Amino acid sequence: MDERVREHAEVLVDWSARVEAGDDVVLSVGPDAHELAVAVAEALGERGANLLATYSSGEITRAYLRAHDGDFDENPDHEHALFEHADVYLSLGGGRNTSATADVSSETRRAYNNARTEIRETRLGTRWVSTVHPTRSLAQQANMAYEEYREFAYDAILRDWESLADEMARLKTLLDDGSEVRLVSQETDLTMNIEGRTAVNSAASVAYDSHNLPSGEVFTAPYATEGSVTFDVPMTLRGEPVRNVRLEFEDGEVVDFDAEQGEDVIDEILETDDGARRLGELGIGMNRGIDRYTDNILFDEKMGETVHLALGRAYDANLPEGESGNDSAVHVDLITDVSEDSRLEIDGEVVQRDGQFRWE
Amino acid sequence: MDERVREHAEVLVDWSARVEAGDDVVLSVGPDAHELAVAVAEALGERGANLLATYSSGEITRAYLRAHDGDFDENPDHEHALFEHADVYLSLGGGRNTSATADVSSETRRAYNNARTEIRETRLGTRWVSTVHPTRSLAQQANMAYEEYREFAYDAILRDWESLADEMARLKTLLDDGSEVRLVSQETDLTMNIEGRTAVNSAASVAYDSHNLPSGEVFTAPYATEGSVTFDVPMTLRGEPVRNVRLEFEDGEVVDFDAEQGEDVIDEILETDDGARRLGELGIGMNRGIDRYTDNILFDEKMGETVHLALGRAYDANLPEGESGNDSAVHVDLITDVSEDSRLEIDGEVVQRDGQFRWE
Repeated sequence: MDERVREHAEVLVDWSARVEAGDDVVLSVGPDAHELAVAVAEALGERGANLLATYSSGEITRAYLRAHDGDFDENPDHEHALFEHADVYLSLGGGRNTSATADVSSETRRAYNNARTEIRETRLGTRWVSTVHPTRSLAQQANMAYEEYREFAYDAILRDWESLADEMARLKTLLDDGSEVRLVSQETDLTMNIEGRTAVNSAASVAYDSHNLPSGEVFTAPYATEGSVTFDVPMTLRGEPVRNVRLEFEDGEVVDFDAEQGEDVIDEILETDDGARRLGELGIGMNRGIDRYTDNILFDEKMGETVHLALGRAYDANLPEGESGNDSAVHVDLITDVSEDSRLEIDGEVVQRDGQFRWE
Repeated sequence: MDERVREHAEVLVDWSARVEAGDDVVLSVGPDAHELAVAVAEALGERGANLLATYSSGEITRAYLRAHDGDFDENPDHEHALFEHADVYLSLGGGRNTSATADVSSETRRAYNNARTEIRETRLGTRWVSTVHPTRSLAQQANMAYEEYREFAYDAILRDWESLADEMARLKTLLDDGSEVRLVSQETDLTMNIEGRTAVNSAASVAYDSHNLPSGEVFTAPYATEGSVTFDVPMTLRGEPVRNVRLEFEDGEVVDFDAEQGEDVIDEILETDDGARRLGELGIGMNRGIDRYTDNILFDEKMGETVHLALGRAYDANLPEGESGNDSAVHVDLITDVSEDSRLEIDGEVVQRDGQFRWE
């Protein structure tokens, strides 16, 4: 086994999920994530945790959903009970085809997801962490050779997380103390209110309210957004390529938009519900192990020298206890490159210019 | 997809497990059983059942067990809760190496199994069915080419189960009404008492108390065994080849034994506990779709023109309500070919001669 696979497993189990002896762990395994699953099983055995492996396959989901009449039972008991008794949920993504469910209708998908709201909430109540095993299918999606992609993925995953967490803590403090954020670049001039909101230092560990490996971003939940922003990082949304989306905000709400490509997808997202036209997240990517776009949001939004904004649902972790933020059925991240001709200001002070933080 | 894979899935879901709308189904998937799992997911979706897939990999189990200190938590809550709320458990065997756990010590294995007794009992309380997807690894174990093995496996699995169940019902009636069974062949002359015991018509369906697909045997729980028996069907037990085992019984207990090969394994089994020296099962194979030994007990013991006896634990289904039969930590099947020079008598009447039943 490649030593990096074992290191990945150890970072996931120890740094990210803080697994301890006696923890009941659900390990979700993608069809091509087998090798990582073996390494994680070894780490879980060593720590004396209890392992149940589930199988997460797009092809199985597709076959099931297409055959079903669409009238799904609400929160099936067996799956709900599993997560009610789980301490930790580790998801090892890694399929054979990132388009495996492309021909499942969005109505069926939505009905299935809606019928599983409580299971999802219960699962999000565990110490959950999502990661991916670098597979050939992900390499293909990134337009990269397999070996090249593995280098890329492990550069992103095998960081010195402790030291990155320290650096990100600086930005978190500035955001927590600040009231207004302004993002300016060639085609962007956007102000957002963040007063009263708490930033998350997303250091790839549940100890930091961070549930992705890799991570490496600081994010908060903005409101009262004004101005316009262009997202120049290319991505695929709902199976469609999306390029250069421009959003215009008034009073916190999108009042105009266009896109070079994928405008219909953006329209569809904005039409989901009222919350889909407001921002749920402002995130600042700080993982310099990620140095290129790979059309995979798990990596792209953490890339150093990028900023992302999400339309839709805000995360509770950013909000004062008991307060609910922007609510929506969607949370769609869009990314802008800030490495050139840009500045990020908090209450008028420049914190990042052309991708470099003022402490760099 | 090969149409036989789809037929296999339909037999499993409809005939074997009697799945209905609303059933909470746990589908255990071996790493190379993916294709069958897709077909089963489709069938479950069509019937409106609820699907949770688990991943059953020898390599994951091995990594976990070898890394663990051996002091296993008893019946982890999350897994126990899953099966407590499941209606149906479908196990799709199919790994990449039938020896994947060969270097896990038997102590570790035993400790792990002992710590999971309640989970196992709970799982056996569902409508559970075990089957296998024909894989290259199973073909190799059977000394067969892959395509040849697939033909073999589907011949065994895709039977006219209803008509086989009718034929097996005849033998069940004879065994239920009978008191003494005698098996005679060149190197065998064995009598067993079956008075008061109920035979199971193992027709590959939970509706018949039968939990294997393929099945095709009638079995009961004998006692007071006298005489000797030679098992001439070659098999692998605990990783060791075993050939021509001879057991001698007095008063229901093994008093002498030898084997051409694997005598130490037989010795180890007999030494497990008191119950390991007594019979837990007499089974008569009636699946003529199985026409050769493949060193896989799921198939071998169902082969037409064979009889098998198990050392160890008896099944509750064979016993009067509330009565417990032979108890043991093991249940090890051994098989004898009865296609030539043999007869099976019930209370002195010949029921099968040279592999042919008297109604054939």
